[in-house]
Amino acid sequence: MSRIKLGLSMRYLGYHIAAWRHPDFDPGSLSRFEAYRDIAQKAEAEKLDMIFFADGLAVRSEDKPAGSLSHDMRNAELEPITLLSAIAAVTSRIGLVATASTTYNEPYHVARKYASLDHISGGRAGWNVVTSWSEQEALNFSRISNLPKDERYDRALEFVEVVRGLWDSFEEDAFTHDKTSGQFYDPDKRHVLDHKGKFFQVRGPLTSARPPQGHPLIVQAGASDQGRNIAAQYADVVYTVSHSVEEAREFYADLKARAAHFGRRDNAPLIMPALAFYVGETTAQAQAKLDELQRLIDPLAGLALLYTYVGDLSAYDIDKPIPEEHFANGISIGSSLIKRARDEGLTIRQLYELIGAGYTVRYVVGTAEEIVDDMQLWVESGAADGFNLCPPILPHSLDDLSAFILPELRRRGLFRTEYEGRTLRENLGLTSPLPSGA
Amino acid sequence: MSRIKLGLSMRYLGYHIAAWRHPDFDPGSLSRFEAYRDIAQKAEAEKLDMIFFADGLAVRSEDKPAGSLSHDMRNAELEPITLLSAIAAVTSRIGLVATASTTYNEPYHVARKYASLDHISGGRAGWNVVTSWSEQEALNFSRISNLPKDERYDRALEFVEVVRGLWDSFEEDAFTHDKTSGQFYDPDKRHVLDHKGKFFQVRGPLTSARPPQGHPLIVQAGASDQGRNIAAQYADVVYTVSHSVEEAREFYADLKARAAHFGRRDNAPLIMPALAFYVGETTAQAQAKLDELQRLIDPLAGLALLYTYVGDLSAYDIDKPIPEEHFANGISIGSSLIKRARDEGLTIRQLYELIGAGYTVRYVVGTAEEIVDDMQLWVESGAADGFNLCPPILPHSLDDLSAFILPELRRRGLFRTEYEGRTLRENLGLTSPLPSGA
Repeated sequence: MSRIKLGLSMRYLGYHIAAWRHPDFDPGSLSRFEAYRDIAQKAEAEKLDMIFFADGLAVRSEDKPAGSLSHDMRNAELEPITLLSAIAAVTSRIGLVATASTTYNEPYHVARKYASLDHISGGRAGWNVVTSWSEQEALNFSRISNLPKDERYDRALEFVEVVRGLWDSFEEDAFTHDKTSGQFYDPDKRHVLDHKGKFFQVRGPLTSARPPQGHPLIVQAGASDQGRNIAAQYADVVYTVSHSVEEAREFYADLKARAAHFGRRDNAPLIMPALAFYVGETTAQAQAKLDELQRLIDPLAGLALLYTYVGDLSAYDIDKPIPEEHFANGISIGSSLIKRARDEGLTIRQLYELIGAGYTVRYVVGTAEEIVDDMQLWVESGAADGFNLCPPILPHSLDDLSAFILPELRRRGLFRTEYEGRTLRENLGLTSPLPSGA
Repeated sequence: MSRIKLGLSMRYLGYHIAAWRHPDFDPGSLSRFEAYRDIAQKAEAEKLDMIFFADGLAVRSEDKPAGSLSHDMRNAELEPITLLSAIAAVTSRIGLVATASTTYNEPYHVARKYASLDHISGGRAGWNVVTSWSEQEALNFSRISNLPKDERYDRALEFVEVVRGLWDSFEEDAFTHDKTSGQFYDPDKRHVLDHKGKFFQVRGPLTSARPPQGHPLIVQAGASDQGRNIAAQYADVVYTVSHSVEEAREFYADLKARAAHFGRRDNAPLIMPALAFYVGETTAQAQAKLDELQRLIDPLAGLALLYTYVGDLSAYDIDKPIPEEHFANGISIGSSLIKRARDEGLTIRQLYELIGAGYTVRYVVGTAEEIVDDMQLWVESGAADGFNLCPPILPHSLDDLSAFILPELRRRGLFRTEYEGRTLRENLGLTSPLPSGA
């Protein structure tokens, strides 16, 4: 079987909501480049495919419930494109995937920055396409509310097409640099996009040579019908947040079928569910790592976390079940956890622990053998091509990955011991794209 | 007297328009990070204050005169914010100034990226504020034409104020990181901007800790009345393109008077005219360096360069004077050179050589002693606080700077031998700003 693809998701230096309160964690590292750099270099030494930064353009749980926000670590971070550019300079093989919103950006800027990151990194850039669902973000961009979801996805589709078109501005061998004739490039190998669409009119060309990967990687995470169609058509990698292997298999089959419809090659898009992990020598030791962090969740931080999904619960006893009227929320992120909370009658504390252990993503607790069994099952049963690993606390969880999980994966021949290529596409087994117009 | 401030302007790896055709120049280096990195590290070894990237968001001389564009080197470059972030990771003292347009960006993005670059670099970031004058840029951002100049500057002023406000989102000591109480920051030291203006409505706060410099440096280059007022009020450094010491003195006196009106301290803004240099052991050797490059200007590239200033001259003999009807152009960049061309009856070739030797900026040709005499005169007679050095060809001109000009400056006690501080503000002798609201 093919090897498992592995990415490391680094936002907030840990996916456990209380990571910053752990005695071994340095909260100052959230604003310190060297902390991110050291983790990226470790991840590269372990031959992970890529590092990844999720992103948002506002503090999402702004000001509710009262007093909770100052307990929330999601207030001080570095910006992904600057951070990954800096990391590019001190790494040589690992992929670098940064999030940028199609709702609050211009395609010319996005095309240019990711092309530049691809040049700087020698072909290791990826763009995680998001449409930005929160109302708080609109308020930072001169709007009074977010765009309706359908319009956001229509805009996202056109945005991606413009960006791809701009990346094709120059053919790979366009720059002749003929000092004798004075010709800097071959004009027949330069293409003016001249896009005129519903949302954008973009002439081009981009003032960049063709990126080393042809196109930087496109990563996408939309689970809706519109999101799946964008992913099936254009994404190279799809992130998902599936909580059961059955749910993941359904998604996998559906997305690969849609991709086949669009004539995709190379098993693209690769599907990588998020996975947080608590691992130890024994199951009990792994559970103790989780328990230690769960005890550190301040109820106010827990309530702030839940606010996005079920509104303000600060008036209730956190050890009582969640009141029924709070289950009427529309966002898709975390919806299966919310359903479970309702079905199982979870208390407020139980729900914020469930979500807080991995910021909504699935988490596993166990020995290396148990966790790798789980990963292998997912990959071999058509639920995943790999995983977007969400470490509970960095750099500690990466050390756990190195000590426990990666050796077990390698023992089973499921993960590489050396990079196969120089570019991210090469390492993922994805060929360069054809030009958009081809 | 105080020391001379020196920046190195690195766009296109050289300010001579034909630099890429020089036998010693590698045109492929324009897209190669390592080339920029090596130059930045050399500039840091020489203790220069900062490196700087001018920028534009389109190929400006698009498609005219016929056939000229493919002879123009301004078609393949890296994007400044990604490039400077990467350079930040492999340098430790030199300032990093990147251009971003207030016409085609959102203040939340600009505030966030420059704050992040300031964190990544340990306090070395600067933002060169431009309003983007070319029509070609509008076409890449879903507009059919650029904004009128007055509106561009009104927008720029409000944009700068919003960015400054966002940088003040958190006070320096806001992040208490109190693991015991679970309080991540002190809510009294967090400020929500809630800006509601003519062009922007931006709530904030920025999800970044206060930048190490308080505010990243603000650099500005507008010579118009509106531009000067923005500079006088908010710029830390002002770039100018003065072609005579008299013109520069007038500007200097005017800007410092305006700054005094706004209550500025620290001799801010520092005024740094652009200066290209051709230097050698003898004046003749310096002139030979210039002559060699001038001979390499392809007439088509020369015509493409002139197109911005005097329109399409491709129908004329390049060794005849410029036809009078071509002097009716409105842009301020290069206007004194255009005036000179008219007054002196320069030929087309003479004008493109005059502009092409330094992409519109003033250039000097001579020995180290001659050039440093000139620099000293400017600084001592109230025309400049330093210079934005525009090397004709990189890395070669930087080697010339090291071999000739810097030793002479140091011999006279006019330039440092070691950095005084850790941040760019410290090295320039600029204190941290007061919070915007103070």
